[in-house]
Amino acid sequence: MTTQQILLGSRPEGLPVAGNFLFSETNLSDIEKSEVLLKGLYYSVDPYMRGRMNDRKSYTPPFELNKPIVGGVVAEVVDSKAKEFKPGDFVLGTLPWQKSMISPAKGLQKIDTKIAPASYYLGILGMPGLTAYFGLMDIGKPKAGETVVISGAAGAVGMVVGQIAKLQGCKVIGIAGSDEKIKLLKEGYGFDNVVNYKTVPDMKKEIAAICPDGVDIYFDNVGGSISDAVISNINFYARIPLCGQISLYNTTEQPTGPRLQPMLLTRSVLMQGFIIFNYQARYAEGFQALSGWVKEGKIKFTETIVEGFEKLPEALIGLFSGNNTGKMIVKAIE
Amino acid sequence: MTTQQILLGSRPEGLPVAGNFLFSETNLSDIEKSEVLLKGLYYSVDPYMRGRMNDRKSYTPPFELNKPIVGGVVAEVVDSKAKEFKPGDFVLGTLPWQKSMISPAKGLQKIDTKIAPASYYLGILGMPGLTAYFGLMDIGKPKAGETVVISGAAGAVGMVVGQIAKLQGCKVIGIAGSDEKIKLLKEGYGFDNVVNYKTVPDMKKEIAAICPDGVDIYFDNVGGSISDAVISNINFYARIPLCGQISLYNTTEQPTGPRLQPMLLTRSVLMQGFIIFNYQARYAEGFQALSGWVKEGKIKFTETIVEGFEKLPEALIGLFSGNNTGKMIVKAIE
Repeated sequence: MTTQQILLGSRPEGLPVAGNFLFSETNLSDIEKSEVLLKGLYYSVDPYMRGRMNDRKSYTPPFELNKPIVGGVVAEVVDSKAKEFKPGDFVLGTLPWQKSMISPAKGLQKIDTKIAPASYYLGILGMPGLTAYFGLMDIGKPKAGETVVISGAAGAVGMVVGQIAKLQGCKVIGIAGSDEKIKLLKEGYGFDNVVNYKTVPDMKKEIAAICPDGVDIYFDNVGGSISDAVISNINFYARIPLCGQISLYNTTEQPTGPRLQPMLLTRSVLMQGFIIFNYQARYAEGFQALSGWVKEGKIKFTETIVEGFEKLPEALIGLFSGNNTGKMIVKAIE
Repeated sequence: MTTQQILLGSRPEGLPVAGNFLFSETNLSDIEKSEVLLKGLYYSVDPYMRGRMNDRKSYTPPFELNKPIVGGVVAEVVDSKAKEFKPGDFVLGTLPWQKSMISPAKGLQKIDTKIAPASYYLGILGMPGLTAYFGLMDIGKPKAGETVVISGAAGAVGMVVGQIAKLQGCKVIGIAGSDEKIKLLKEGYGFDNVVNYKTVPDMKKEIAAICPDGVDIYFDNVGGSISDAVISNINFYARIPLCGQISLYNTTEQPTGPRLQPMLLTRSVLMQGFIIFNYQARYAEGFQALSGWVKEGKIKFTETIVEGFEKLPEALIGLFSGNNTGKMIVKAIE
């Protein structure tokens, strides 16, 4: 049988464009022992994927030219020669952008749609949720009464960070880019305040006004001048989990800015870069905490679901304009 | 009796100059209960003192205008109405730049000149030594076989960091600013290699060549472009204790440079600002380790001793041109 796929046709300069992606077809042979035939249901698009489009060594190898883009996918098992899976099972895996695909059973994770909708395994119960949990709890180490500021607060990670911080008794300030997002975070998710970085004239002053006791934890998803403004209000002994730098992912020249080390030094601040794979040994702990909060209704989650496999490039590109609220997902439709 | 003193006459713009200091005389009254009369022997000049000359809130309050500069001093007890001290005792304290001074006994620490020369309590057995010990051991967490790079390597802190790192089985690379300093660190102190930042044309390439396995710990005393060069060679899971930023202390405008967060993020690097007062509860542990190594001859120490109380301003200013090898101290002479 043949199936549609999306390849990396060329490496982007700056913001990716539709022309960087190539639509193609590929032939699927018969499955062999320990393999399954899958049909893609939900495809994850995530900011970190931009880095893999460059030809540069990082914590994950670059996508190869003229090969399918690879990412988080929730799929249904259609046929199986692996004892672990039977047709009708839902699985999560790192899989190619194809409508159907053959995969070894190894590396696939069966998901339980009784706990939460299947797509949640790409969001609150998947990589973004775990990133929020470990970044905040293990690096941020929140204490009741502390002030937590989150950039990219309406993204899949940010909205979870804020809600976990509230559960720890913190004062939670978000930074987001639209009135709609701000309304959701304040009214739906219990954030104490949310700043619109697109309309506030002086972010440094605004953060100072909203955080009169300073900033104890800055959970950074965006970097750049927004982070400069927050860090200029950072407290002694503050913690800065570095989770994302989305404002810089499409720059074509080395970004420059104020040197932060003198302030980090005199205020004894910790800045810690991390990626979720560092916490692989503790995923079960994170999943248990997050799924518990979701079941108890203590943490809510928003998805931006774009319909149609062919919309994958557009959805990925849209992340960099903040087109998503919460987790951006592409749903395959027939 | 009257005694000579040195006041902060005006706040420096950029590098301090002799004119920022005022020589004056003050009258000492009789000592009261729980007080001692001291004669200054060794006066410490340290890079952090530059920050206190500014009128800006930091971890220590600014020096006051037309008041004596205050710093680490080793003094001899001349007269005492405190039961803890008797004439002839040597003490360490945070004391004014005066030839003689009256001090409450509280806050003074008796020092044992049988363990090491009195001046060592301003260096290897004092604040710089403890800074090296806790910054490296607690934040750097060195493991045998790792590569440690130290900027300001011939300074009072840097030369101790390098020797402790060697005792932990690390490969140790220093960065310093003269051939004389480099010779001392390589031949006297066992550094594996030392780079002269003043003559090497491309520091980034040089560090890459000398550290083929990358940099696991970067102990930063200087900041600025030297740090950029080291950090561009930083390893996954590296640690950066931020101890000093001497290259930036005299800047009059906000220094800018490449944004480092993207690299810290993708390589899961820790950057931790610290000051020695954070470790106050553990000073005894640090002192025990350092004095043990000194007694066993496992760690050596260099001092640059300038003679004459009136040389204090000049000695402090000289720190910013690297005039010192090891600890810069001013010795009072009669």
